[in-house]
Amino acid sequence: MATIFSKIIAGEIPGFKIAEDDRFYAFLDINPLAKGHTLVVPKQETDYLFDLEDSLLADMMVFSKNVARAIEKAVTCKRVGVAVLGLEVPHAHIHLVPINSEGDISFSKPKLKLDKEEMAAIAEKIRSGF
Amino acid sequence: MATIFSKIIAGEIPGFKIAEDDRFYAFLDINPLAKGHTLVVPKQETDYLFDLEDSLLADMMVFSKNVARAIEKAVTCKRVGVAVLGLEVPHAHIHLVPINSEGDISFSKPKLKLDKEEMAAIAEKIRSGF
Repeated sequence: MATIFSKIIAGEIPGFKIAEDDRFYAFLDINPLAKGHTLVVPKQETDYLFDLEDSLLADMMVFSKNVARAIEKAVTCKRVGVAVLGLEVPHAHIHLVPINSEGDISFSKPKLKLDKEEMAAIAEKIRSGF
Repeated sequence: MATIFSKIIAGEIPGFKIAEDDRFYAFLDINPLAKGHTLVVPKQETDYLFDLEDSLLADMMVFSKNVARAIEKAVTCKRVGVAVLGLEVPHAHIHLVPINSEGDISFSKPKLKLDKEEMAAIAEKIRSGF
């Protein structure tokens, strides 16, 4: 069965797309730690990041860098942090989170609640800088 | 002035080395979130991960994958998580943290206190699997 991320990529579940190429897809995290919190996934369904073939893993990081650059242009932050946990959805994903302090990446803290219009506006702003 | 990580690489500050090649160096985080928590740094002093040249960033991720594989062999965990914040030391570093739940990567939580002997034993165990 397709993962929830594959369904977002396929457009079967609505999502806020940021960027895409033939192997990777980036979209806003629906439960963000910060405005502009984005997920980067390989289109290939692999559960664990470190099970990705070396070249795919390497290129995913460079794709993530390009997405991070676009996030930096769109959102006020000191830099874009990175996190990979992957215990909830069995489809490898890199979290890109705008951060201002070391405590800003903490998945146990409450997530932001943003309405669809705000999510769409953030996505559009990041997308335009990609 | 050399960063604290460059001083560890140079042996001027003691550290618990895990692995090294011509461009990267891995060693135990001295304030670990979990046993086996390791930092991977480029030998080149660049502050922000996403300022690294694409090929260096890509290869750093593959080097990190190989270190993560060794951590998995040495430490009981569901997988090795990844985090990059980088607001404290101006030398890009990837945290590799053995995790069992989504809350295990949280830099605001108290760090473990391990004595030198225990750190040395963990480092030796990971190193032997690299």
